[in-house]
Amino acid sequence: MLITHKFPPFERYENNPIISRDDIPYPCNTVFNAAACRCMGKYILLLRVEDLAGRSHLTLARSNDGINFQVDDRPWVMPSEDPLYEPYERYGVEDPRITAIEGAYYITYTAFGPYGVRVGIGKTNDFSTFERLCLATDVDNKDGVLFPEKIGGKYVMLTRPGGFAGKRGDIWISFSPDLEHWGGSRVLMTPSPGGWGSQKLGACTPPIKTEDGWLVFYHGVKPTGSGRIYRIGAMLLDLEKPYTIRGYTSHFIFAPEMDYERIGDVPNVVFPCGAILEEDGTIKMYYGVSDTAIALATVNVQDVLSACR
Amino acid sequence: MLITHKFPPFERYENNPIISRDDIPYPCNTVFNAAACRCMGKYILLLRVEDLAGRSHLTLARSNDGINFQVDDRPWVMPSEDPLYEPYERYGVEDPRITAIEGAYYITYTAFGPYGVRVGIGKTNDFSTFERLCLATDVDNKDGVLFPEKIGGKYVMLTRPGGFAGKRGDIWISFSPDLEHWGGSRVLMTPSPGGWGSQKLGACTPPIKTEDGWLVFYHGVKPTGSGRIYRIGAMLLDLEKPYTIRGYTSHFIFAPEMDYERIGDVPNVVFPCGAILEEDGTIKMYYGVSDTAIALATVNVQDVLSACR
Repeated sequence: MLITHKFPPFERYENNPIISRDDIPYPCNTVFNAAACRCMGKYILLLRVEDLAGRSHLTLARSNDGINFQVDDRPWVMPSEDPLYEPYERYGVEDPRITAIEGAYYITYTAFGPYGVRVGIGKTNDFSTFERLCLATDVDNKDGVLFPEKIGGKYVMLTRPGGFAGKRGDIWISFSPDLEHWGGSRVLMTPSPGGWGSQKLGACTPPIKTEDGWLVFYHGVKPTGSGRIYRIGAMLLDLEKPYTIRGYTSHFIFAPEMDYERIGDVPNVVFPCGAILEEDGTIKMYYGVSDTAIALATVNVQDVLSACR
Repeated sequence: MLITHKFPPFERYENNPIISRDDIPYPCNTVFNAAACRCMGKYILLLRVEDLAGRSHLTLARSNDGINFQVDDRPWVMPSEDPLYEPYERYGVEDPRITAIEGAYYITYTAFGPYGVRVGIGKTNDFSTFERLCLATDVDNKDGVLFPEKIGGKYVMLTRPGGFAGKRGDIWISFSPDLEHWGGSRVLMTPSPGGWGSQKLGACTPPIKTEDGWLVFYHGVKPTGSGRIYRIGAMLLDLEKPYTIRGYTSHFIFAPEMDYERIGDVPNVVFPCGAILEEDGTIKMYYGVSDTAIALATVNVQDVLSACR
């Protein structure tokens, strides 16, 4: 029996998934885990596209309505060949997030290479040129998500250090004067044994500013005898002390249910990398499904805030 | 047969170990892995002392000749109870290194807690008061060693991120404007499969400035069917571009051979955390043996430099 979680009431777009392999104008294996933002009146998605060799790159898609996207005919960010980046991106660039800060768009992504994974940061003003800024973390760290404002004079980022080779993975928060040098790291949220995210937690979508705090969707990973289940919770962080959790949902609020969320290269994964708050209070959540396609669900921000309190 | 490596010619102090449990004026399990420096005409060792509960703290010892040390009658650095540090040091503070920079003494150490290990940095001017500055890294990172000068306007540190849960461990180099925020990280040296440090490499002693480059003793870990062997190599880093290796020893140059290096809580470990270059070119290398005591060996710096070239 398919259980539908009614609280808070997410609505899946009826024609999900909105982007799948057939929408990419060049050969690839899959497309999933897309960053999202609005820029100059358009909706922008930055797609993780896995090529036929299994290596991921990032490709742009644009839309007027946030539903029907036109995908670029070529990749936008390929793994770098610059010696400062090459070894660390050799196996691909993955799972982007976009955060607008002071008029520019910052893109965090997972750099994957033979040493492990790191959080890379790049920048664009117009989604035309892409400028790499740095690899911000050491190795074995991913799911980097920037806050849309400096807080206390510093850039703020959530990351997921550790959590590899079967270890537990926690959400950490770090601070930077310049986006390049990071410090002041501390644990923000850690899995509850036996819970829906008992193995790993990681930030998903860049924080959305609300009157109650910074709203962040995050994923929890639960191991089962037949693989992992990725599900989504929400947390509220204090606006001025973002290392303080003001509230979080007492259970997951979004989980794989539909066939397109359960069937794919990596079954039972919903993984939002982008959430756009519309003026009417609707959040458009763009999420990868089973590492195979991109889907859209909407929810009212007040319903999510209520669930966090 | 006991093989003695003749090149470069290390000389072990004949009455090794120089400090063992019986020299600590309070009950403990073992003492090992001591940082070393000279301060106001004295030799200083900062000892890692493992208490009877298995938790480590740091205790000072002082000497006029670098051989006979007087150990303080109480710990100098205990795991912190400050909420910013407490969870990360809950299981102990370990493996200190001392680096003198611009007249102050900076102490890097391994903070060990339920989330894993991190590199902590503290400061003293006189080995009287100890001031914590920060936890400089995320989790799963240790063997932090600071350079004795800023290079290109930045503090420089070697660390060993990753390398846990059976993963390979590499030596990385990072940069900081203020000792608190770190970035620009890159891999410096990585294990050679099948070699003497095939599982992990980590910096041991703070870099010593020589005309040929920064001289660093590092450890290599090789797994065997009956545990690990820790041995020591040396590398030379470019004075202005310390991320460039100018030379390194083609083999380990110091290894467990004596009974006191082979027998103890963790057999077959030599682990220097301090090296003092004397005016006559002698390096006094203080090294933990089998996580059980502290020993001293000397070597001429020119012989080590020759071995690196």
